[in-house]
Amino acid sequence: MIELPEEVVRLIKLAIAEDLGTGDLTSEAVLADDLKGRAVIEAREPLVCCGLNVALKVFEKLEPGIVFSSLKAEGEDAAAGDVLVELEGSMKALLAGERTALNFLQRTCGVATLSRRYSLLAAGKAVILDSRKTIPGWRWLDKMAVRTGGCSNHRMGLYDGVLIKDNHIAACGGVAEAVKKARCNAPTGIDIEVEVENLDELEEALSSGADIIMLDNFPPDKVAEAVKICKGRAKLEVSGSIGVDNIEGYLNAARVDFISVGALTHSAQAADIAMEILVDD
Amino acid sequence: MIELPEEVVRLIKLAIAEDLGTGDLTSEAVLADDLKGRAVIEAREPLVCCGLNVALKVFEKLEPGIVFSSLKAEGEDAAAGDVLVELEGSMKALLAGERTALNFLQRTCGVATLSRRYSLLAAGKAVILDSRKTIPGWRWLDKMAVRTGGCSNHRMGLYDGVLIKDNHIAACGGVAEAVKKARCNAPTGIDIEVEVENLDELEEALSSGADIIMLDNFPPDKVAEAVKICKGRAKLEVSGSIGVDNIEGYLNAARVDFISVGALTHSAQAADIAMEILVDD
Amino acid sequence: MIELPEEVVRLIKLAIAEDLGTGDLTSEAVLADDLKGRAVIEAREPLVCCGLNVALKVFEKLEPGIVFSSLKAEGEDAAAGDVLVELEGSMKALLAGERTALNFLQRTCGVATLSRRYSLLAAGKAVILDSRKTIPGWRWLDKMAVRTGGCSNHRMGLYDGVLIKDNHIAACGGVAEAVKKARCNAPTGIDIEVEVENLDELEEALSSGADIIMLDNFPPDKVAEAVKICKGRAKLEVSGSIGVDNIEGYLNAARVDFISVGALTHSAQAADIAMEILVDD
Amino acid sequence: MIELPEEVVRLIKLAIAEDLGTGDLTSEAVLADDLKGRAVIEAREPLVCCGLNVALKVFEKLEPGIVFSSLKAEGEDAAAGDVLVELEGSMKALLAGERTALNFLQRTCGVATLSRRYSLLAAGKAVILDSRKTIPGWRWLDKMAVRTGGCSNHRMGLYDGVLIKDNHIAACGGVAEAVKKARCNAPTGIDIEVEVENLDELEEALSSGADIIMLDNFPPDKVAEAVKICKGRAKLEVSGSIGVDNIEGYLNAARVDFISVGALTHSAQAADIAMEILVDD
Amino acid sequence: MIELPEEVVRLIKLAIAEDLGTGDLTSEAVLADDLKGRAVIEAREPLVCCGLNVALKVFEKLEPGIVFSSLKAEGEDAAAGDVLVELEGSMKALLAGERTALNFLQRTCGVATLSRRYSLLAAGKAVILDSRKTIPGWRWLDKMAVRTGGCSNHRMGLYDGVLIKDNHIAACGGVAEAVKKARCNAPTGIDIEVEVENLDELEEALSSGADIIMLDNFPPDKVAEAVKICKGRAKLEVSGSIGVDNIEGYLNAARVDFISVGALTHSAQAADIAMEILVDD
Amino acid sequence: MIELPEEVVRLIKLAIAEDLGTGDLTSEAVLADDLKGRAVIEAREPLVCCGLNVALKVFEKLEPGIVFSSLKAEGEDAAAGDVLVELEGSMKALLAGERTALNFLQRTCGVATLSRRYSLLAAGKAVILDSRKTIPGWRWLDKMAVRTGGCSNHRMGLYDGVLIKDNHIAACGGVAEAVKKARCNAPTGIDIEVEVENLDELEEALSSGADIIMLDNFPPDKVAEAVKICKGRAKLEVSGSIGVDNIEGYLNAARVDFISVGALTHSAQAADIAMEILVDD
Repeated sequence: MIELPEEVVRLIKLAIAEDLGTGDLTSEAVLADDLKGRAVIEAREPLVCCGLNVALKVFEKLEPGIVFSSLKAEGEDAAAGDVLVELEGSMKALLAGERTALNFLQRTCGVATLSRRYSLLAAGKAVILDSRKTIPGWRWLDKMAVRTGGCSNHRMGLYDGVLIKDNHIAACGGVAEAVKKARCNAPTGIDIEVEVENLDELEEALSSGADIIMLDNFPPDKVAEAVKICKGRAKLEVSGSIGVDNIEGYLNAARVDFISVGALTHSAQAADIAMEILVDD
Repeated sequence: MIELPEEVVRLIKLAIAEDLGTGDLTSEAVLADDLKGRAVIEAREPLVCCGLNVALKVFEKLEPGIVFSSLKAEGEDAAAGDVLVELEGSMKALLAGERTALNFLQRTCGVATLSRRYSLLAAGKAVILDSRKTIPGWRWLDKMAVRTGGCSNHRMGLYDGVLIKDNHIAACGGVAEAVKKARCNAPTGIDIEVEVENLDELEEALSSGADIIMLDNFPPDKVAEAVKICKGRAKLEVSGSIGVDNIEGYLNAARVDFISVGALTHSAQAADIAMEILVDD
Repeated sequence: MIELPEEVVRLIKLAIAEDLGTGDLTSEAVLADDLKGRAVIEAREPLVCCGLNVALKVFEKLEPGIVFSSLKAEGEDAAAGDVLVELEGSMKALLAGERTALNFLQRTCGVATLSRRYSLLAAGKAVILDSRKTIPGWRWLDKMAVRTGGCSNHRMGLYDGVLIKDNHIAACGGVAEAVKKARCNAPTGIDIEVEVENLDELEEALSSGADIIMLDNFPPDKVAEAVKICKGRAKLEVSGSIGVDNIEGYLNAARVDFISVGALTHSAQAADIAMEILVDD
Repeated sequence: MIELPEEVVRLIKLAIAEDLGTGDLTSEAVLADDLKGRAVIEAREPLVCCGLNVALKVFEKLEPGIVFSSLKAEGEDAAAGDVLVELEGSMKALLAGERTALNFLQRTCGVATLSRRYSLLAAGKAVILDSRKTIPGWRWLDKMAVRTGGCSNHRMGLYDGVLIKDNHIAACGGVAEAVKKARCNAPTGIDIEVEVENLDELEEALSSGADIIMLDNFPPDKVAEAVKICKGRAKLEVSGSIGVDNIEGYLNAARVDFISVGALTHSAQAADIAMEILVDD
Repeated sequence: MIELPEEVVRLIKLAIAEDLGTGDLTSEAVLADDLKGRAVIEAREPLVCCGLNVALKVFEKLEPGIVFSSLKAEGEDAAAGDVLVELEGSMKALLAGERTALNFLQRTCGVATLSRRYSLLAAGKAVILDSRKTIPGWRWLDKMAVRTGGCSNHRMGLYDGVLIKDNHIAACGGVAEAVKKARCNAPTGIDIEVEVENLDELEEALSSGADIIMLDNFPPDKVAEAVKICKGRAKLEVSGSIGVDNIEGYLNAARVDFISVGALTHSAQAADIAMEILVDD
Repeated sequence: MIELPEEVVRLIKLAIAEDLGTGDLTSEAVLADDLKGRAVIEAREPLVCCGLNVALKVFEKLEPGIVFSSLKAEGEDAAAGDVLVELEGSMKALLAGERTALNFLQRTCGVATLSRRYSLLAAGKAVILDSRKTIPGWRWLDKMAVRTGGCSNHRMGLYDGVLIKDNHIAACGGVAEAVKKARCNAPTGIDIEVEVENLDELEEALSSGADIIMLDNFPPDKVAEAVKICKGRAKLEVSGSIGVDNIEGYLNAARVDFISVGALTHSAQAADIAMEILVDD
């Protein structure tokens, strides 16, 4: 398998270092070096399994040859009580990695589970996108979990997408001028997206040749109007305070290409996951 | 002011790198280098202010001489609409740092706000402690936010506290033996804490001379019994699934030294905070 | 100014470390610590000025308060003998940074100068793109120099663009299937580009809805045919062994959107640049 | 084999990170994780083989157990069409490493091939040395390639050699004083080299006891005179704008110890090398 | 075995890099790559064996699969001439690691040997503690060696222990106030220690509820008085210029809990250890 | 002033991190953020002042604008009680840096003081050299202290000097062959040094054209014989168990070029240095 990106490996090192520091005082004090153990990681509530390779990396950093067997695939559903992983290795490594591995999994599974809920709600009527409202240090993991749950990714960061907002437009002196500059300077292969606040701006954005237009805080009826105006000349993205309570209204009002939901990563709950350890006799 | 610890600076670098990557395509394409701007960071809901120095660090990394004025102190309450920070600097730096700074603040303020709620509930009847259930990479920040909200910290990690759990006891052949080994090998100045499952184990832990005893998943009436048995021979910590719904029962049942609440960091909601930017004329 | 991306700063550190190591034996042995000097960096042949901020960074790392005055803007032409930069600082820092700064500049200016030549040849008839054939460690700098010289960037790397090649197509079982998978899994806002070897594959790629089609090693007449077939349904990129000797043929044959030229970075000559140092009296 | 020096490993990591970033969008989107493949790396023109261990390191970082078989030794000649390396591993790793590995090899082989040309020209009449005019970040690799091609290395950097230039002499008040200071302060075992502009300075340098004297921009006849004056009292190095066109003049004029040629690394052309990949059935 | 803490691995990398730099000139110049060898590491004087895993790490960094067999356990006594380790691997790796591995071992064994001497002197009458007077970069290794020699560790650093000194007391306005603040703000599980200069301050510290009281520069008779006053209300630590010449006086005067001895790490002599290498035939 | 080399800055960061970790519990708990203080660093015994710029760097990392005034120059003698440095800054930074700064200074001054003693003993009769027996992580600092005390440096590491030892000779099949290979492969400007065990090997080394010959464990009378045989054909270095007790014998027996003394860094005692802090009123 291709390595996790360098930034995730750096986060994992940081996470181990912040917990383990100069060593596990308790285990060093009371356990023998050669004590072996077995463990299982279990779901304590229904969830979408995600991030097991991160948990694996945590334990491998602590004990290179540890035995780590995934019983669930990425994206697979787990019921409460289902075992996700079986582990076998030194007792010290199991105890040293337990909390860090669980802290990773409870968020990756939590984001994937919430994303699954949205992707089922959308049911193919629109592509649900995430945002850049991720936990600092977690951008790649949060976005991986969104994909695992069945939603799609907006740009990873400022570097791989163009999104022209009100401040950019004000500084350029208009939508048309901003889109033109962006087209000229951005790498080929990257779409030009513009955020619009009303239908007049939408018209201007369409004339300027923008690839994607973000309808910012439009109510469902205005979105429907926008779709009619657009006539497929650009892709449309609906954005702004959309959640499980109001997404149906948008899905029913009109067919847009994308609905972006900051809540996917901004408001995901930690999944309930635990680890049980057995000392070998 | 003493520098943020190295691990937090590493996290901030990681967070900037993951969002900015090889540069902000949009701003590079459409904005002039010398464009200046002003901005405010505002609370959008009532919250406890926390982590402004982290936001400052984000912007300083992007523009060393940026003007960043905090209008609120750490731990101060903010109402919806209150301005937390005023900023003045290059437009490119303001836009490049906006999302990362907010992503930091929405969690630091979120954890501080939840901790404030628990510290008010406890009202001096017990010290409320956090746990190691923190976001990987965020240990120091999560624990700083807990203190800012008025609760206290359990150990930072495995390296600065001894907590003997069931697996340690099983491997040592009993509570007394485990406590003895820990006392002998751990650095002086570090208390020995033991987790117990029932009153028999409590007696054994008291005889062994443990400094702190964690009553794991005891209901309030059992906690009251434990306090009577203990008679001040050790400090007592109550732990296990305690939240805003059931903490009163524990606070009323008996005076223990510590109540540890994983939810402080495990279940904190992101606070609603936004940034408004003005292009200078 | 927005900081150089982290990866460029890492390269600069590496470059200083590899030259300076544990210190400049000669200067440490024969020069006084407080000796001051002045210097100029000069073009020794006509060139397009590029990368002065990198040279600045080199000297700042060696002496934080050094005086560094750029006399030319990025992208400005310089004649042989023109002064690009004036410097004033400690003699030790000037001598320690001289070679490293020049080694950077001779390539950044060299790539910009070659790119200028191509952009003048194209004269608006097509956008000239670079490739990923850059010096390892220099991706961002090489691509910055390409833009400075007036050409445009293809994707920065594997992470911010989709380019489906023969091996991908073979593994997927066809162009249509590969494009469909890519559309579904890649982040929104990223165009799907496909490489084709002949006109049949071009038809298939057009039907599959690819955004950009790369005509790989097509002679000019086949390119003209492709343009007629395409009728604007996708953007077209010409690629493969194009240089100053044969680019006219392509430019005259038909209007394509992009011509990619690996030679921009692959075959750029180091520009002739030197530094003159004066010891202060 | 002894590890590559830390600085080269850092460069390799940088190179992988800049190309791969957060992952290969295309392969992640269209290829299965378990798809295997085979590949060959081939010379497309005659070249001296150099840097295969760097290419190996690139692929190992992407897939630890990849099969990488070198068919040529370092320094061995390859004809156009010769296979340098056979590879077998995951398709994703092969595609992820292809461009970065080739970008490394085309320069390491290019420098080695040019160095071979100079070493054959010199044919034992003088030792051909490189300079510090290397690509930033590439000092060790460029110098390794020079050795592989049969030339020799001047000092690696400022830290492992003493070279007194005009500015040092001016600051010290004369050649004699500068050499004396250097002898006193530099580590034992490091020769003292001085650059001279004319025959008067040569005499002074000889009297001062310098170990090596660099004849800066001397025409061949002056070099011959210098050799007569020197009578073996110091080693002589000829330096300044020497290339394939004028090196014969120097080689025929007189026997000096060293001829340094900046062009070895400054003007080397990228060698033409390609990779062919086959998807396993 | 649990990994060495990250900071020790960083030190090992630093140590290898500072010695090896861009490579071992001598071995690269004169030895074949495939030459194998064997070696032994021997004590040249009686010592306590300590730090073999660090030596192992040094060689593993140079040659991942090297054969390294420890003949002594950590903490075991070695006589002059005893073999501590047998090694088998590439000649280049053996020679490259020799000096660095010995430089580590001569200090780790030196500190352990001195600590053994103190622990035998104390013979259970008091726990002997180290201090923070360690070699910068070596905190963890120095403290590991102290434990290996049979003494105990005071806090690892400023982050895992509270020690209130005269400046803290002056700034707070008294011992009682300082202890109260510390109790309130420090993590639970960390003892509050106060340094006192005389018996009056001792009384105040006892009343304030300090957990440990450091008697700073008390002569043995004053220590005896302090023990009588304390009556077990706090733990007592004796500190200040205690060495092998005067420790008996303290041990005989009264039973205190801890005697801290800066000399353990501050004045340890390097142990005499050597490596013998045999070239394989 | 030119920056300290990167490796020293890395060591300083490591040293601060290992002591400060996640923060100074005591100061954070009991001191106000805005409390200011003054301090002096004093010699407690006669010593040679060395490494003040390292102490400065420690405090600057903790508080960028701290006032740090050196009252002694590098290499200047200090008597017991002399103030070396005056400091003014935040109380928290002074206390956080105190121990780390002193831990650095006590060794740098200790090594410089011992080196001064040897350089006075040698009194110009021979150059006294150090060895690679330095504290891991401290190579540059230990060697800087040696120079500050008036002795000279042998090679910094394996990368900047050639020293052919018995194992190299055995592997090459003789002294002559080893010297020839080294001459051919090592960078120009680096002397070839060979270690010899007896007078026969000395003759062989002289014939081979070695630049420096190390007389390993020769008694003074054999050294005198060697000097006679050598007749200035190479430089001679005496090495092996030389200390203050026996160096006179060598100095009187004959004039050699170099005497190398491992004890300079291997057996230096920590100098007695302390810091006094005053809280500002």
